[in-house]
Amino acid sequence: MRQIQLSHGGGGQQMNQLISQLFFHHFANDILLKSEDAARLTTQGEIALTTDSFTVAPLFFAGGDIGKLAIAGTVNDLAMMGAKPDYLTCSFMIEEGFPYTELERIVKSMAKELKVSGAQIVCGDTKVVPKGCVDGLFINTAGVGNFYQAQRPSASAIADDDAILVSGDIGRHGACILMARDALKLSSSLTSDCTTLWPRVSALLNHRLPVHALRDATRGGLSAVLNEWSAASQVNINVIEERIPVSDEVKGLCELYGFEPYDLANEGTMLIALPQRDAQAALDVLRQFDPNACQIGSASAHRQPSHHQTNGSQSPQPKVILHSPWGSRRYLELPQGELLPRIC
Amino acid sequence: MRQIQLSHGGGGQQMNQLISQLFFHHFANDILLKSEDAARLTTQGEIALTTDSFTVAPLFFAGGDIGKLAIAGTVNDLAMMGAKPDYLTCSFMIEEGFPYTELERIVKSMAKELKVSGAQIVCGDTKVVPKGCVDGLFINTAGVGNFYQAQRPSASAIADDDAILVSGDIGRHGACILMARDALKLSSSLTSDCTTLWPRVSALLNHRLPVHALRDATRGGLSAVLNEWSAASQVNINVIEERIPVSDEVKGLCELYGFEPYDLANEGTMLIALPQRDAQAALDVLRQFDPNACQIGSASAHRQPSHHQTNGSQSPQPKVILHSPWGSRRYLELPQGELLPRIC
Repeated sequence: MRQIQLSHGGGGQQMNQLISQLFFHHFANDILLKSEDAARLTTQGEIALTTDSFTVAPLFFAGGDIGKLAIAGTVNDLAMMGAKPDYLTCSFMIEEGFPYTELERIVKSMAKELKVSGAQIVCGDTKVVPKGCVDGLFINTAGVGNFYQAQRPSASAIADDDAILVSGDIGRHGACILMARDALKLSSSLTSDCTTLWPRVSALLNHRLPVHALRDATRGGLSAVLNEWSAASQVNINVIEERIPVSDEVKGLCELYGFEPYDLANEGTMLIALPQRDAQAALDVLRQFDPNACQIGSASAHRQPSHHQTNGSQSPQPKVILHSPWGSRRYLELPQGELLPRIC
Repeated sequence: MRQIQLSHGGGGQQMNQLISQLFFHHFANDILLKSEDAARLTTQGEIALTTDSFTVAPLFFAGGDIGKLAIAGTVNDLAMMGAKPDYLTCSFMIEEGFPYTELERIVKSMAKELKVSGAQIVCGDTKVVPKGCVDGLFINTAGVGNFYQAQRPSASAIADDDAILVSGDIGRHGACILMARDALKLSSSLTSDCTTLWPRVSALLNHRLPVHALRDATRGGLSAVLNEWSAASQVNINVIEERIPVSDEVKGLCELYGFEPYDLANEGTMLIALPQRDAQAALDVLRQFDPNACQIGSASAHRQPSHHQTNGSQSPQPKVILHSPWGSRRYLELPQGELLPRIC
């Protein structure tokens, strides 16, 4: 088997061989090997469910590949709910002629990343489409998480005076994909932040920190998360620009291309909102994983302007306000237009 | 919005608009509208979980479209476990420039098909890739089902003397896609069997029929299901060829192209294994939905040959045996090679 053929997706003997020799071999567990139409699972009653398709180009990049991304991405969505990632589904959409060795490398990378959270792939699907109908390989993963702790972080649970923390420096995944695709072939030590965040979330929950909201800053970056939080919780969010950790490589690329680092995608960096009095304890936990974790700002209650105040300074909608080092302020808006397609 | 643009998948304002105006509008329910990283769901404890990606070409065909298929396919996988399809995830991978009206038509078709089982889409994902990176549109759906009844049909639960039933005539979906793609543009009244099977499964379970195995005969058709059942349950399966319902249109196309109707894909036709004494009661239920439902054969225990009998007539592996109208017998094998790519 040097290349994936259409027959590997046909539902017959060749598909069965690909599934058993490659997928079952690397993802092996009792539930998957039952090979029924669906996996039968035991849950805690309440579950979290999520899905993500991955279309990243190139398939392999500094610090990861589409396989690592497909596991970390879905596992992180569950972790952001406070749920332990337990069960994943996995679907491959493969272009005819795709090299078997690359597929194997991706599958091994997925198996390795699964170990970080302990999640298992319990069912799957394989489609092979003719040459030209998909660019190489897309992967979809869906995930089921169980709630073993009482905390239920939510985008709409952010309160007045909550601290806003970030788990590490931002923009690395987006910058890394940009670099990998650029014709200049810039050389740099920059790697994607792509990683499974469950160990950090688990540590926060185990310390019984009253986490109000968690969100990984994927597409749309920091800007998107902060704006979604502000709208969902109806709070203003004030962010101190000089506190936001951005590496020199990411800053340099942003200057070169005219991007904002706040809009760049991350794949293993999250924002945390929790009461100010618990911020230091949370940072102590987060810094065991990444020394760049820090507080970048705080939330404040949004007061609806009354009718006779509409000419005042208070905006009718809550806002994300960025404070620059030289004392000026500006709104940080939801990113508009397309920055960079196929980053995840 | 006349065409889907890259910005509709960028994680910013345009993506939010597409999601709220199209997906939330047609799939609306309380869980989906919470718009968190993952959906929080209540389950019965034990659940069924499945996934399927849909890459069918053309996107619209007689009797259905990729949207109807994406709902029916995943819902059917859950139903085949005896689980009621309750929650679905939905991920769109869209080519830049895809017509908005076609996407809307597909989304409406999904919303309509969801009503048949009562399942809800509770979370989703949207990716837009540059022109040429995907052929039009792929959809992935994953599903969670709950077990409200005691029956747990399984491919490995088929017993000696079980009746093998089929819920309707076979091969229509595969034949229909073949016809839609053929340059001859054959005119025919043939439509795909694409449909949600949960109402039939639910009726069988409500009649407390002791169903041993259920499987929808998708890729690989009748041949694939019967061979997988034979291997998983270690039984021989004898099938009476003249009893297998095949429409004249499907027979005609098979003769023209040299296909076996038993290998053609179905998307709303299932096989049922249950004790012979319950076969008639099951057929009475199934015929309320489709008059073509019938018994096509039966299972028989497979006796392993002992060492001194290896020259005897008993095969070392159990087999699917097709009995022709003129008294001859042949093995029905797992389909080999690629019949027809992108049928689902």
